[in-house]
Amino acid sequence: MDRDKIRDLLEKVRNGSLDVSEAMQALKILPFEDLGFARTDSHRALRTGYPEVVYCMGKTIPQICAIVERLTAAHKTIIASRATEEVYAAVHTVVPGAVYNRDARLIVIGEKAEPQTDKKILVITAGTSDIPVAEEAAVTAESMGNPVDRLFDVGVAGIHRLFENASQLFSANVIVAVAGMDGALPSVIGGLVDRPVIAVPTSVGYGASFGGVAALLTMLNSCAPGVAAVNIDNGFGAGYIAALINIGAAS
Amino acid sequence: MDRDKIRDLLEKVRNGSLDVSEAMQALKILPFEDLGFARTDSHRALRTGYPEVVYCMGKTIPQICAIVERLTAAHKTIIASRATEEVYAAVHTVVPGAVYNRDARLIVIGEKAEPQTDKKILVITAGTSDIPVAEEAAVTAESMGNPVDRLFDVGVAGIHRLFENASQLFSANVIVAVAGMDGALPSVIGGLVDRPVIAVPTSVGYGASFGGVAALLTMLNSCAPGVAAVNIDNGFGAGYIAALINIGAAS
Amino acid sequence: MDRDKIRDLLEKVRNGSLDVSEAMQALKILPFEDLGFARTDSHRALRTGYPEVVYCMGKTIPQICAIVERLTAAHKTIIASRATEEVYAAVHTVVPGAVYNRDARLIVIGEKAEPQTDKKILVITAGTSDIPVAEEAAVTAESMGNPVDRLFDVGVAGIHRLFENASQLFSANVIVAVAGMDGALPSVIGGLVDRPVIAVPTSVGYGASFGGVAALLTMLNSCAPGVAAVNIDNGFGAGYIAALINIGAAS
Amino acid sequence: MDRDKIRDLLEKVRNGSLDVSEAMQALKILPFEDLGFARTDSHRALRTGYPEVVYCMGKTIPQICAIVERLTAAHKTIIASRATEEVYAAVHTVVPGAVYNRDARLIVIGEKAEPQTDKKILVITAGTSDIPVAEEAAVTAESMGNPVDRLFDVGVAGIHRLFENASQLFSANVIVAVAGMDGALPSVIGGLVDRPVIAVPTSVGYGASFGGVAALLTMLNSCAPGVAAVNIDNGFGAGYIAALINIGAAS
Amino acid sequence: MDRDKIRDLLEKVRNGSLDVSEAMQALKILPFEDLGFARTDSHRALRTGYPEVVYCMGKTIPQICAIVERLTAAHKTIIASRATEEVYAAVHTVVPGAVYNRDARLIVIGEKAEPQTDKKILVITAGTSDIPVAEEAAVTAESMGNPVDRLFDVGVAGIHRLFENASQLFSANVIVAVAGMDGALPSVIGGLVDRPVIAVPTSVGYGASFGGVAALLTMLNSCAPGVAAVNIDNGFGAGYIAALINIGAAS
Amino acid sequence: MDRDKIRDLLEKVRNGSLDVSEAMQALKILPFEDLGFARTDSHRALRTGYPEVVYCMGKTIPQICAIVERLTAAHKTIIASRATEEVYAAVHTVVPGAVYNRDARLIVIGEKAEPQTDKKILVITAGTSDIPVAEEAAVTAESMGNPVDRLFDVGVAGIHRLFENASQLFSANVIVAVAGMDGALPSVIGGLVDRPVIAVPTSVGYGASFGGVAALLTMLNSCAPGVAAVNIDNGFGAGYIAALINIGAAS
Amino acid sequence: MDRDKIRDLLEKVRNGSLDVSEAMQALKILPFEDLGFARTDSHRALRTGYPEVVYCMGKTIPQICAIVERLTAAHKTIIASRATEEVYAAVHTVVPGAVYNRDARLIVIGEKAEPQTDKKILVITAGTSDIPVAEEAAVTAESMGNPVDRLFDVGVAGIHRLFENASQLFSANVIVAVAGMDGALPSVIGGLVDRPVIAVPTSVGYGASFGGVAALLTMLNSCAPGVAAVNIDNGFGAGYIAALINIGAAS
Amino acid sequence: MDRDKIRDLLEKVRNGSLDVSEAMQALKILPFEDLGFARTDSHRALRTGYPEVVYCMGKTIPQICAIVERLTAAHKTIIASRATEEVYAAVHTVVPGAVYNRDARLIVIGEKAEPQTDKKILVITAGTSDIPVAEEAAVTAESMGNPVDRLFDVGVAGIHRLFENASQLFSANVIVAVAGMDGALPSVIGGLVDRPVIAVPTSVGYGASFGGVAALLTMLNSCAPGVAAVNIDNGFGAGYIAALINIGAAS
Repeated sequence: MDRDKIRDLLEKVRNGSLDVSEAMQALKILPFEDLGFARTDSHRALRTGYPEVVYCMGKTIPQICAIVERLTAAHKTIIASRATEEVYAAVHTVVPGAVYNRDARLIVIGEKAEPQTDKKILVITAGTSDIPVAEEAAVTAESMGNPVDRLFDVGVAGIHRLFENASQLFSANVIVAVAGMDGALPSVIGGLVDRPVIAVPTSVGYGASFGGVAALLTMLNSCAPGVAAVNIDNGFGAGYIAALINIGAAS
Repeated sequence: MDRDKIRDLLEKVRNGSLDVSEAMQALKILPFEDLGFARTDSHRALRTGYPEVVYCMGKTIPQICAIVERLTAAHKTIIASRATEEVYAAVHTVVPGAVYNRDARLIVIGEKAEPQTDKKILVITAGTSDIPVAEEAAVTAESMGNPVDRLFDVGVAGIHRLFENASQLFSANVIVAVAGMDGALPSVIGGLVDRPVIAVPTSVGYGASFGGVAALLTMLNSCAPGVAAVNIDNGFGAGYIAALINIGAAS
Repeated sequence: MDRDKIRDLLEKVRNGSLDVSEAMQALKILPFEDLGFARTDSHRALRTGYPEVVYCMGKTIPQICAIVERLTAAHKTIIASRATEEVYAAVHTVVPGAVYNRDARLIVIGEKAEPQTDKKILVITAGTSDIPVAEEAAVTAESMGNPVDRLFDVGVAGIHRLFENASQLFSANVIVAVAGMDGALPSVIGGLVDRPVIAVPTSVGYGASFGGVAALLTMLNSCAPGVAAVNIDNGFGAGYIAALINIGAAS
Repeated sequence: MDRDKIRDLLEKVRNGSLDVSEAMQALKILPFEDLGFARTDSHRALRTGYPEVVYCMGKTIPQICAIVERLTAAHKTIIASRATEEVYAAVHTVVPGAVYNRDARLIVIGEKAEPQTDKKILVITAGTSDIPVAEEAAVTAESMGNPVDRLFDVGVAGIHRLFENASQLFSANVIVAVAGMDGALPSVIGGLVDRPVIAVPTSVGYGASFGGVAALLTMLNSCAPGVAAVNIDNGFGAGYIAALINIGAAS
Repeated sequence: MDRDKIRDLLEKVRNGSLDVSEAMQALKILPFEDLGFARTDSHRALRTGYPEVVYCMGKTIPQICAIVERLTAAHKTIIASRATEEVYAAVHTVVPGAVYNRDARLIVIGEKAEPQTDKKILVITAGTSDIPVAEEAAVTAESMGNPVDRLFDVGVAGIHRLFENASQLFSANVIVAVAGMDGALPSVIGGLVDRPVIAVPTSVGYGASFGGVAALLTMLNSCAPGVAAVNIDNGFGAGYIAALINIGAAS
Repeated sequence: MDRDKIRDLLEKVRNGSLDVSEAMQALKILPFEDLGFARTDSHRALRTGYPEVVYCMGKTIPQICAIVERLTAAHKTIIASRATEEVYAAVHTVVPGAVYNRDARLIVIGEKAEPQTDKKILVITAGTSDIPVAEEAAVTAESMGNPVDRLFDVGVAGIHRLFENASQLFSANVIVAVAGMDGALPSVIGGLVDRPVIAVPTSVGYGASFGGVAALLTMLNSCAPGVAAVNIDNGFGAGYIAALINIGAAS
Repeated sequence: MDRDKIRDLLEKVRNGSLDVSEAMQALKILPFEDLGFARTDSHRALRTGYPEVVYCMGKTIPQICAIVERLTAAHKTIIASRATEEVYAAVHTVVPGAVYNRDARLIVIGEKAEPQTDKKILVITAGTSDIPVAEEAAVTAESMGNPVDRLFDVGVAGIHRLFENASQLFSANVIVAVAGMDGALPSVIGGLVDRPVIAVPTSVGYGASFGGVAALLTMLNSCAPGVAAVNIDNGFGAGYIAALINIGAAS
Repeated sequence: MDRDKIRDLLEKVRNGSLDVSEAMQALKILPFEDLGFARTDSHRALRTGYPEVVYCMGKTIPQICAIVERLTAAHKTIIASRATEEVYAAVHTVVPGAVYNRDARLIVIGEKAEPQTDKKILVITAGTSDIPVAEEAAVTAESMGNPVDRLFDVGVAGIHRLFENASQLFSANVIVAVAGMDGALPSVIGGLVDRPVIAVPTSVGYGASFGGVAALLTMLNSCAPGVAAVNIDNGFGAGYIAALINIGAAS
């Protein structure tokens, strides 16, 4: 398709319907789309069904509203992550159909995602306090068209709780394992399953947990293979890559 | 299948062909396999075609040789990672068919893995010095039956080198991006592709690279979604999870 | 005992009083208890007299109330740690008998623990500001049935204060030593006594105390043997392991 | 010139128009100006047209007002950096002509700087949240008489946005690149241009961004040469050195 | 007993069998023993049967030999920890009966310790590379008269290996859990048993394991209670406190 | 003197004027004073004229008031450090003569200290924001009877300001150098003077100043000898040791 | 020029001398050169006279030789940085005209750079041990056609040494300030001059210098403006950006 | 004295015995000596009797020899610190009278320092392994004319060893306390004495001692006042400042 655009452009130059300086301008403005190296997020979103994402932290409410408003013109689905109640109130005024998931701190705007696959992502937490981050992952993956199972509060301090839910564990295609404090859950899961585990450290804990650093290091040093980590509290990132893995390649 | 084993066991107890203490013994020795919560690595390897892995660092050469020898009895493929020349010399004596990949510091023992998929994993490095870690990833994934492409020395300091190879980038199902120093490559790739990127920081660099910590942090903070990281220099881990992602779920 | 349960189950299958699918279900639901590898916390609490613990930080008040309410049905004693005044007010509404220890930030619910031993745990602090953490340790150990002595503000800056109380020091079976800033107290105590010292760093201090890290490192590097450390400000953990040590094994 | 002052002084001593103790006093009071080793900030400001700067953080509002008031007597232009709304309100009372740049958190007092050069400084940000730091840099450089272009939200997660503005990139004499999170933007820019890049890490991010440390390390480890970094969020410092570079040496 | 000594001393002064200056001398030389605040290590060792310990790292071989030689005069058992082969060779010349435990890097000198208890300490490792640290703990505890069980290479990456040895786990009075990399083993064990767990992080690992820091942090943040940690690679310290716990108080 | 006390005690026992159990009690209650190893803070304060100090952070207002009240009975001078306005209000009610130094956050109670020496301590700051810490040092030293000079805002960014005040610098017996941000001032001073420099890092700064760690490290790495450092923002500690140095030994 | 290439290409398509698919191929292969967003390093080097750089650390000697050999075909000047004696010996065999600067650990290959400017770069060190890093900076800048002055061992511990060379300091257009330990030199220089200062921390020092981190932090926190830092020991990077600054923009 | 020099100079100009240009030259060459702000180290050494110091680490042997040779021309005493055996061998060839203190790694060249005071510095170590650092401090202070007592291996793990030597402790004018591992010794000493304590952390230890950082932090957080710290292993710096304190001001 993009290659067709370049071909068209060049054909038009050849047949004289476009002059050279106009062609140069066109190549300058849209170079990467035309050449296929890069795509505007709009194109990617339209083609893949992935939502356009607005990260709210550090942006002013007017900035967020302006961005959301502009994106709604071009996109089927928009996610606003790390959105406070205040942000939601403002966005809701601009886009009345916006839905707020309080646990996940996510605003979802637009049509419900069409199912992309019937394989399941399982989102697991070690504790109750890890649930907001887990919900951020789960809702993100759902908004990208993935079926998501949830299994919360099954940390290694009472490991039988994990084993009692073994069937969920073994039937998942991708696992997102969310844990704070010792962050030991992904290592144990990585040793049990043969599917990829996306580990999400949380800032749950105190003292030498260093705001999630202890859990992050545990996950990076997992003695079980098949585990990769995202940033502390990055539920969105975990849900996003889990969705990419779960949907699989187009070909 | 595992459930069938338990059912069989219990049926045998009921019909008297197995007495209670024998059944108890069987449950005790293989409890997790039988119940499906856990598997010995042997079972996993046989079923999935995944290789059995021996991590050599911190083990004595006699320990490594003894482990390899025992595993060869039960496994089709064995990988010994972080193997020095000395380790290889010793292993080769015990298992003459062992093959050493110097760049990857991996010994591969056993039959060539049967192809599991024709989707491709692309292993990319930012620089020349990152190649050993990249090869560890590539050979690991290949030994698990995956086609692997390599694209080396395309770091962001000369980003046109990456774009000149855009077709490789866009045709890969999973990307393993290996970089030291600023570790910026995975962020750029994550912004270009819509497939999962496994980021591998390397200890290449000096001073404030802190043995790969700078690159690791860059990758964990990737502003592009779709990126997850493994430990510094952990080519094996990256290759392993990339293989799991690429092969996909059985169902 | 647990083995007896499995034996019973199997006998019942053999004699036909339990059919195979029912037996399978039983093994699936309670596998670890039946096999003796793991116990639900409920079982452990009932058998040992140890309290069930709810860690309040990071949980919402409704979550805490719901958990406490459910646990009161099955447990003799429940501790809610890191409980604020607000949490207590809410819990008190649900369980009117709940008692709040402000210094220790602990809510204790249920019967007074029966004495498990007459050996003493001594809880020592270096300063006045360390008292809340020390009280958390002391009340935890008391709620598990241990006699606890307290000796506060005897830090090494005025070491004679410690020596003047030497008789308390030498008559304790386990010592919990709580200190912030330089964290030097456990090293000195470890050099004086021949009983185990559980060291608790606190976040008391400023600047290069790094929220308790300096004290933690001092304790981990104690040049006196017989010292082990728990997390910064983890009075609960120190009290719990001190209680386990003090009570001793059943056999 | 300064040497002339010493010569004058000594000549006056020789010819008796200045006595020895007066000469000693003069040498003591103004030694470094006279000898040329150092200059009072006043002298530097008057000669170079550079503004006098007041860093507001950590100073009380009365202190700031007193400093600003005293400086207005001697200086053409004064900048008050990291100024809150409250600070501005107070300063405005003292110096009614003071102008507040909210985004940049800068108060500029005095005449508009005369243009020092027609070469351009380009201030680029990776994201929207980096704009306050970027504005601090831009306004600082402008107040020192430099033309400044702005190019915001062109981070590497959508690298085509940077390339679409390539002409701005290649026509700048100095580039100030502002980025939080992965901080990868300066490395990419450093690989594209052949002009100096001043990299400014911001505290935008969370978790393992460690308040801007991740971005700072990325920038210090830039695999592209031609990049130097200032402190986290130090827009003022970046704008100042960019201005020095852009103006060039007097000779 | 110690109080009796003071009483004796004072009685002797009163009845004239000891004069005042002799009494003063006695009080000066042995003040803390006589008063009961402190004991020379010699006295403690003789009374408790605990060995006298020489930490070899950082001492010259002549220093070690001199210390060992002096101690052998007064002590039943001496341990020299972190002893290299060279140190052993030299010590063996001085004290021919010295026995070297290569794995544990410990030299044990003197009589075999009399059993102090029949309760068992269980020393567990996550991996093969953790064995030297584990042996240091085990031999230390044995030299203090404790029965020690060993259970090696049962890390959480293959958690069934731990469960298959559950009977050892549940019959131990104290557990020393040794792990590098993710350090997750003690958390899992702490959730299974109701006896104290002494966690020993090891420097086994690479990259973001930071020489054992990752494992240490995991252990300090254990979400299971009943766990306390010692310094990285500190097998001696773990064995020592485990022995103190296991032997129990005299009373 | 202390030895005399023991001799007296023993003589009294010998001549029967003190019985053995009374003597034992005396040795137990005041052992370290009598033996000269330790002194209660009361004794030290009375003898040396040093004030008794109450560190307020982390103590409740009732605790502070109770401590201050008790101390006023026995001490000539009391300092309460890190005292907020609220603390002062409460203390002032208990001890109406208490004087509050807002800049230094110190309450001074009791008589004005008698001059101990006419040598001067010079307290220098790099910037205006460092003044509170400097005042804490200055007032502490003054309350211990030392003449103190102040020289503020003479940091190395305008080093002529330091040199213009060289006479103050060279006439001081001890220098307390207070600096945040780059913390470079003590190195420069240490290279100029031949008297001891006590360096005090402050938490003034942002970003990579890490709350004063950058300044602390600069001071610990001073390439000029004659410099030692105290904790970040520890004006009290700096003033105290400067006073000890300045007063000199009694002999 | 590059724009001319595109224009040529399009003209050729229009006049039929190049067909559409050939034009597409050309755009794909050389997209960034043709569009001006990026240049192969070859182009940049030819146009600017900047040398092509090979960073030797982490590359094998055969790799280095192969790279150097290939580059000599296309480039006038090549620098190989961090080159050991062994590397030089091998490179010298391949390119006999290669010149080794032992202090700077740089190999320079090719013609002497033509002077680009007569403005001077001044490279200053705090100590003697910083000279290798300083030479790396100086030789890099010289190889890019810049006049370089050197001023070594003028650290702040004896600040008169700096002032005695004030004329060099004030006549430089760019200053590269190299310092380990306390890293205080650039702050002092930044306060004296009104030209940009590139600060280079070195790993000279011990203990809490943390391999140059202390010096790096000092430089990032410089209280004098006009200072930016490069990585620890990065003499090459400092020399490179100093050269870019000194040469100035083409326009 | 220095002021006299300026007065002389000016008088000579006035009476014509020195012409203006000669006077200018004199002011330029020796400006800081003449003005009294700074002194060449030579002048300071001659006047105070302090030795000139050469820090050997990071300097080549030829550099060290050249420096030592030049200094011997002008100085009575020279210390070369951190000198290896090799350095000594080379220096000894150049200056045959050089004396090597192996423990302290110091070469002392020149006349024995004249006693400056009869007050004593006490150098204390916690352990045997801390002795080299302690000797560096002791020999430095002795070479500056101070009487030094040594008290080694009296760490807090056996605190009675410290108390048995209380008379040495209480008769010292300045104490240098050297400790690795937990670094607790200076806190205990600071609580016992009323003289300044210079704390020296050593890199003795392993694991979480982080090469002396743990001990350093302990010392910076000393809960006893009167303690200031120098860099890790910086025996020279501790000895130097202790000497400055002990000698006292000239006036």
